[in-house]
Amino acid sequence: MTKAVKKLAVLGSTGSIGRQVLDIVQSFPDKFTVTGLAGGKNTSLFMNQISQFKPKLVYIAGKLDLPGNVKLESMEEIARHPEVDMVVIATSGRVGLGPTLSAIKAGKKIALANKEVLVMAGEIVMAEARARQIQLLPIDSEHSAIYQCLSGETNKIDRIILTASGGPFLNHAASMLANVTVDEALSHPTWKMGKKVTIDSATLMNKGLEAIEASWLFAVPLSKVEIVIHRQSIVHSLVEFVDGSIKAQLSMPDMRIAIQYALSYPERLANYGPPRINLPELNHLTFERIDYSVFPCLTLALEAGKNAGTYPAAMCAADEVAVELFLQKRIHFNQIAEIIEKTLSLHRSIEKPTLEEILKADEWARDTALAILSKVT
Amino acid sequence: MTKAVKKLAVLGSTGSIGRQVLDIVQSFPDKFTVTGLAGGKNTSLFMNQISQFKPKLVYIAGKLDLPGNVKLESMEEIARHPEVDMVVIATSGRVGLGPTLSAIKAGKKIALANKEVLVMAGEIVMAEARARQIQLLPIDSEHSAIYQCLSGETNKIDRIILTASGGPFLNHAASMLANVTVDEALSHPTWKMGKKVTIDSATLMNKGLEAIEASWLFAVPLSKVEIVIHRQSIVHSLVEFVDGSIKAQLSMPDMRIAIQYALSYPERLANYGPPRINLPELNHLTFERIDYSVFPCLTLALEAGKNAGTYPAAMCAADEVAVELFLQKRIHFNQIAEIIEKTLSLHRSIEKPTLEEILKADEWARDTALAILSKVT
Repeated sequence: MTKAVKKLAVLGSTGSIGRQVLDIVQSFPDKFTVTGLAGGKNTSLFMNQISQFKPKLVYIAGKLDLPGNVKLESMEEIARHPEVDMVVIATSGRVGLGPTLSAIKAGKKIALANKEVLVMAGEIVMAEARARQIQLLPIDSEHSAIYQCLSGETNKIDRIILTASGGPFLNHAASMLANVTVDEALSHPTWKMGKKVTIDSATLMNKGLEAIEASWLFAVPLSKVEIVIHRQSIVHSLVEFVDGSIKAQLSMPDMRIAIQYALSYPERLANYGPPRINLPELNHLTFERIDYSVFPCLTLALEAGKNAGTYPAAMCAADEVAVELFLQKRIHFNQIAEIIEKTLSLHRSIEKPTLEEILKADEWARDTALAILSKVT
Repeated sequence: MTKAVKKLAVLGSTGSIGRQVLDIVQSFPDKFTVTGLAGGKNTSLFMNQISQFKPKLVYIAGKLDLPGNVKLESMEEIARHPEVDMVVIATSGRVGLGPTLSAIKAGKKIALANKEVLVMAGEIVMAEARARQIQLLPIDSEHSAIYQCLSGETNKIDRIILTASGGPFLNHAASMLANVTVDEALSHPTWKMGKKVTIDSATLMNKGLEAIEASWLFAVPLSKVEIVIHRQSIVHSLVEFVDGSIKAQLSMPDMRIAIQYALSYPERLANYGPPRINLPELNHLTFERIDYSVFPCLTLALEAGKNAGTYPAAMCAADEVAVELFLQKRIHFNQIAEIIEKTLSLHRSIEKPTLEEILKADEWARDTALAILSKVT
């Protein structure tokens, strides 16, 4: 059954996820159209996207020579615009928070790729979404897997098992990580992604963020989210139910299947290109325990998640600063964790924080992380 | 939410599945009670079951000294009795067919473990079930896995992937199979089951029956049912959707999880004992292509399924006779396939057969298989 065309606002359209969202839009012209776009630093790509997808509304931080029929609006305005059916939050960091809340309050469908939205403000965002019965459709492959496994299940989750590829440094000793280069850290074994998330995948900070996100999204305590190393990135995550039965979702490591599922939910659209699985060809799938001593960022993230309050926001902000410093070759790889840890040790968390308090904790953590820089280098 | 106690009729209560059904009933006394029991040859076990579960109605082929308050009835009568909510068809072979149809016509919930019911008469049984909107809840671990993966999915199945442990002779050359002993054939690497199904698992006939059963149960052509060797029997089967996303169900090789799911559906009851999965401990899961040359029974089953008519019924009957002859050490292991093949080559199939024609084909095939015996030995 063909339904009406879904009008999308794609925030973060020039990033890795945003570009794949538009790839899907282009492949299903009778299913999706683009009403709004918000781009990042790649302005020439953004201009191309505007001319190809002809949005009515756009946002970009810098100055841009826009066609006459295209209106510049804030991301919050785009997210709540009456002509938008679904808002795709493909931004990264704290910038996704405002537009997400704006979209929820306006009753829009939401496809969420921006992890920090729930990590920083999970309690506020989920309360707003519940109050308005808005489903947050996850775009991350792990959360999409869990969402798919929960389809039709009215039964209690006993355990979520998040799979982690382990990144490029899985079998390194902790002591070897001081001297890894930026290029080494950017060489992810299975996924092609943006730089920030690739470094977060190398430290496993990313898996910590995902665990906190899963805890909010699926209303399970963080203690019921287990992380297991799965090198091949084929099983994207698993859910165990009270009876001991486990459901898993599998696909080749290609974000487009998860993105397409979020965009078209509850319908599944035909596969238009992402590779399919051939199990005998894959031959075997492996699962391993994590050596937490190699990945201090993961432990820091899980602790911040457990401690709640403004700790997760401060942790995200410190990580963003530290990863940027590493990419600029101003700190060693293992100093990412050091900066986050020192920042969190100085943080005075607020319980049940307001949005303003969360954003203040974010600001504070950025300043503090930079101040710590002079001490660790 | 606790619902009313479900009143069960367990047909085949002394078999491997039947005993596990009663194990679950015993573990959830507030969920299930037993109204009817039908047992097999193990009369002392059956008498114990009667005194423990206190059914009102029982059936057994031989003579039995029943307590005064227990009534002897046919399986068809038990299946349609007004005091029965759910009928568990845990018989094997053609005997399950009549009670299943009787239960469907009486509007009962049905938990189905008897493969031959759908293999022999899938078209008739499914048409009756659809007409009365009766859900057939599968008890086989593979079909339970598929059923669980389809929960909440309104989307088209692109492919069913049935997993097969491969049995004890997976890596044997076809030429080596002539001389395997009954004991070797009965040593299944992962599952403990009755003798007939264990031999069927060694020939992979069992997987052929499951493929045909899946095709009827989930309304997909047999060509969309793929069989993959998965040695560990952890992933019980998988479903691929049109978008290329695959869902899988995993649990340790213990039938009780699948049985419990069928009995309590749509609720999932708490795990009361079956072991849980520890992925890092399992370490790896393997998937391999089948070497069809080692398993001629599988090819015969799939061909009979494809040719439809009364071929599947004749094939089931010839297999039952041949397996019995092998267990009696009257034929070699590889003569099981030979007897089935010769029987089918002589069979004159009837298209869209009635129930009577199906049962006649069954009788004919039993006689024919026995007549062939003198020629192959």
